[in-house]
Amino acid sequence: METESFTFGPYKIDPRGVFYSTQFSYAMVNLRPLVLVCPRRVVKRFIDLTADETSDLWLTAHKIGPQLESYHKASSLTLNIQDGPQAGQTVPHVHIHRIPRKVGDFEKNDEIYDAIDAKEKALKEKFDLDKERKDRSLEEMAEEADQYRKLFI
Amino acid sequence: METESFTFGPYKIDPRGVFYSTQFSYAMVNLRPLVLVCPRRVVKRFIDLTADETSDLWLTAHKIGPQLESYHKASSLTLNIQDGPQAGQTVPHVHIHRIPRKVGDFEKNDEIYDAIDAKEKALKEKFDLDKERKDRSLEEMAEEADQYRKLFI
Repeated sequence: METESFTFGPYKIDPRGVFYSTQFSYAMVNLRPLVLVCPRRVVKRFIDLTADETSDLWLTAHKIGPQLESYHKASSLTLNIQDGPQAGQTVPHVHIHRIPRKVGDFEKNDEIYDAIDAKEKALKEKFDLDKERKDRSLEEMAEEADQYRKLFI
Repeated sequence: METESFTFGPYKIDPRGVFYSTQFSYAMVNLRPLVLVCPRRVVKRFIDLTADETSDLWLTAHKIGPQLESYHKASSLTLNIQDGPQAGQTVPHVHIHRIPRKVGDFEKNDEIYDAIDAKEKALKEKFDLDKERKDRSLEEMAEEADQYRKLFI
């Protein structure tokens, strides 16, 4: 088995949470059903990506679209980049939030963004915690990633 | 002067509001400082884009980035696609919301999304109204697009 390494800002990512990757990008599970699509290179702002990285990042988000939407029995999708600290970014590494949406998932549509913001805040805390300890959540994430990985065989 | 035509869902777009375009994509002013980046082809969902359209759409958003950020004296950026009705999409044509962000623009970061949602709702109403009448807002949009267009000469 290949032992690829992935980095997210200052954090080393456990490859068991990564379910899809390309030359320039990778997609990892985060807080179910949220997944993050990131460039492999540690790049803070969207504009810092090269043209190849920009294309590949979004082609990766595009590629994983239908399988994940179908898996979650969703009918829509929220795609979002908080590009820089004033947009709510907590980890200085470009990442697309990808969240499947369905009828009635949030009472009002924009409540999804309270959730994105809360998840973005939790993101840094979670990775900080992961550095300290190996907890059950990593096992859960690995299992979720296994499920997703099967969609792309 | 070239008389290109642009379509946004069921609406014909006044080319004076379009400040940047490529083979597959165009960027238009909307509710200042929000701009929309759209594929030229009328395509409802992100997944309906071809690979070329997907790359070009995001390279367009990437290309207009630094100039517009500097023009608005912003330090961050919110990039968002409401992909499908259950994600809040009102006009059935893929579009990126691109909003420059700066310190203190919203009291809480996620209030930007209430604003995006309100703007998305206003979007359809506005285009419906534009079909009926030609109002002052079109002049204002043309002027704003003129300012932006100068950034890309």
